[in-house]
Amino acid sequence: MAKDKKNKKKDKKADKKKAKLKPLKQQIKRLERELAAATAPATAPQPEGPVISPLAPAGGFPALPVIDGVRFAAVQAGVRYKGRVDVMLATLAPGSTVAGAFTRSATRAAPVLDCEAKIGLKPDPKAGAAILVNAGNANAFTGDHGAKAVQAICAATAKAAGVPEARVFTSSTGVIGEPLPHDRITAVLDDLTAAQDAGAIYQAARAIMTTDTFAKGAGTVVEIEGKPVRIAGIAKGSGMIAPDMATMLVYIFTDAKIAQAPLQRMLSRLTDETFNCITVDGDTSTSDTLLLAATGRADAPAIDDLRSKAAKTFQDALHGVMLDLAHQVVRDGEGATKFVQVDVTGAASPADARKVAMAIANSPLVKTAVAGEDPNWGRIVMAVGKSGAKADRDLLTIRLGDMLVAEKGWVAETYAEEAGAAYMRRDELTIGVDLGLGEGESTVWTCDLTNRYIEINADYRS
Amino acid sequence: MAKDKKNKKKDKKADKKKAKLKPLKQQIKRLERELAAATAPATAPQPEGPVISPLAPAGGFPALPVIDGVRFAAVQAGVRYKGRVDVMLATLAPGSTVAGAFTRSATRAAPVLDCEAKIGLKPDPKAGAAILVNAGNANAFTGDHGAKAVQAICAATAKAAGVPEARVFTSSTGVIGEPLPHDRITAVLDDLTAAQDAGAIYQAARAIMTTDTFAKGAGTVVEIEGKPVRIAGIAKGSGMIAPDMATMLVYIFTDAKIAQAPLQRMLSRLTDETFNCITVDGDTSTSDTLLLAATGRADAPAIDDLRSKAAKTFQDALHGVMLDLAHQVVRDGEGATKFVQVDVTGAASPADARKVAMAIANSPLVKTAVAGEDPNWGRIVMAVGKSGAKADRDLLTIRLGDMLVAEKGWVAETYAEEAGAAYMRRDELTIGVDLGLGEGESTVWTCDLTNRYIEINADYRS
Repeated sequence: MAKDKKNKKKDKKADKKKAKLKPLKQQIKRLERELAAATAPATAPQPEGPVISPLAPAGGFPALPVIDGVRFAAVQAGVRYKGRVDVMLATLAPGSTVAGAFTRSATRAAPVLDCEAKIGLKPDPKAGAAILVNAGNANAFTGDHGAKAVQAICAATAKAAGVPEARVFTSSTGVIGEPLPHDRITAVLDDLTAAQDAGAIYQAARAIMTTDTFAKGAGTVVEIEGKPVRIAGIAKGSGMIAPDMATMLVYIFTDAKIAQAPLQRMLSRLTDETFNCITVDGDTSTSDTLLLAATGRADAPAIDDLRSKAAKTFQDALHGVMLDLAHQVVRDGEGATKFVQVDVTGAASPADARKVAMAIANSPLVKTAVAGEDPNWGRIVMAVGKSGAKADRDLLTIRLGDMLVAEKGWVAETYAEEAGAAYMRRDELTIGVDLGLGEGESTVWTCDLTNRYIEINADYRS
Repeated sequence: MAKDKKNKKKDKKADKKKAKLKPLKQQIKRLERELAAATAPATAPQPEGPVISPLAPAGGFPALPVIDGVRFAAVQAGVRYKGRVDVMLATLAPGSTVAGAFTRSATRAAPVLDCEAKIGLKPDPKAGAAILVNAGNANAFTGDHGAKAVQAICAATAKAAGVPEARVFTSSTGVIGEPLPHDRITAVLDDLTAAQDAGAIYQAARAIMTTDTFAKGAGTVVEIEGKPVRIAGIAKGSGMIAPDMATMLVYIFTDAKIAQAPLQRMLSRLTDETFNCITVDGDTSTSDTLLLAATGRADAPAIDDLRSKAAKTFQDALHGVMLDLAHQVVRDGEGATKFVQVDVTGAASPADARKVAMAIANSPLVKTAVAGEDPNWGRIVMAVGKSGAKADRDLLTIRLGDMLVAEKGWVAETYAEEAGAAYMRRDELTIGVDLGLGEGESTVWTCDLTNRYIEINADYRS
């Protein structure tokens, strides 16, 4: 008993000691945990997948109109990614027209070359068409193997979907220089055709993602002569920034009745005002592809004349959808924290305006100043100067939003640095430059350049 | 006494307790210290000044030959920086010739415009010349004030140095858009002329630094017809990268006898092969200036004919000095950890070769891959594709150093990813691209793109 008591006393004493040591030990544990977290490599893979861009549309993926004559399917083929859908199929009803716009890179990927060759062919009006896209492998710079892989996929898709091979359009996005395991794609074609659903456009948008942090979609319904015409589109990528895992792909569908030639003309013109006006880092993909398919199933009359009121209504609606998708690509720019519009006016020509706008939007110094929330307008002057466009220092006007910053060759008298700094803290900025020389105008969109961009691109593929 | 004893006992107990707690508390302190260090903002100003670039020449500033007819001085004028020399003066003996190369920016700074106007003027052969440079303020985009500041400095320097105003060449480097406090410079002119010394070129190199992490100098002595001719040059900056605080300025001196016209022709040709072949981020400064002064004090005969053996010997030596300085600018590129040479051969034309080399050297994706030590040759293919130069995927050959990486439109059979990865861990890399089309060649030099670049440029000026 005495021993027990003694022991108990000892225990008590020990407990007391422990009680004193415990908080210290807890504190040590906490500090060790915090230190481990603080010193962990910043580039450790996020177990939860990439954080959604802070610039993503607030409402998430939009509700898109169903396009009569188009059905979607997405499945897991395991081309590179595991545990997610990575191949999508869209089939188009007979009579659909298809227009396309492609990267101008001299090292275009095999599926791009194949699409370009097919887009101008006159289709059998009784035949349907199919679009098949895989993520995880770009099938670019893969020699003869690349073209053979495209042929194998097109042949199998044509058979499975019941369309001519010349009407199968494919895209591949992902890593460059690795052979595309096309058998993994052809192996799931029956699953794809079985899963087709007119309402599955969101699944298709998910299946084409690579480094994207959110699925991108946009659509609208317009009335042409009192009848609704629907447009729905999806996109992936972060602009022209990456040949590796962030190629830009866009697929837009409409039930408008419109022949291939005017559809293509409209698409080319609008691409120049939308997707060709965005830049994340000025790097051009080997695989950029934009396909626009019109099923002609709407009750609205056919659009034959591009100068007609109907064509104008449709074109405006299509422009809105394309611009929305283009902006979403910028908003998902790698590491982006700011969405930046660059408005250039008063240039000697539209080409000069575009040069200046792109020089500003691609300048690493402007982009890092935006990231640092620094109203460093001197870097805008620098970018104007290096653009190669005609410019006169003393005629230049620079604005941040509506705020006049510099004019007549110097900082504006009314400009206060604090007001500029406050403006730069916004998530969405407009940089305005007027060259004071002519009527040339251009607007482009870009994002800032942050450490996260370096991390994504320096540490990827390790 | 009993109390004392008790107290002593208490103290002893307390001591014992303390002895147990002490290591824990020490551990806590240590952890807290480590945690504070680990969570401190990475961009906190370095109290010791910027760390010297890891790519800086191992030997430090070189011993440069003294150029007869040139004297240097550097003093503190407090233009912007405090506690360091920030203005330098170089005076040239009567009869010296001066050639120059300047930024092609459309928003050139006031001192650049002034230098350009003066460089072609026929000087009085009995008059000397002066070069005056300040760091901390670029006097760019400063309206009328900028030109007036240049005039004030030139007039005062002409008087202090006893040279015609038309023979005073000035440069300013630093922040854009702020009025240059030229009175601070004119106030120290007497100190400058008093301090002149033929051996003070290192002090001059220090005075023109802005974000540079080391002073840059290069020189050589060559024999022309058995007589020595000396060349010594200094430079500042990190390439064409920054209009804000890292403008590129270069001053080269020689005692060669050579008239202005051939000197200018030689300089223009060599600039194209040296300074115009480096890039850090593709951003072009408003202030880039290169001045080459020849005092004619060497015993060697005059260089009259650019096709002579003497001219060739001198030009080769000058080329070496210019290339050395250009490489030092790249080695001090903001945030650089790798020095990269890009060799392009087999292009359809020299212009195409330059386009491809610059597209590779300026590609953020190639530069981040280099930073991440990733042999991501797909990004090199991408850069070739976007360059705008004629290219054929199947004729393209890509090398890392001597290692064949890709050919005939695909990865080379002999290439092993591990060998590529090992090569990328070097500090100095060569990326080789052969286009297989013609004889066009170009070599450019650049550095990698790291988080530190973003930090320097996002956080500067805050």
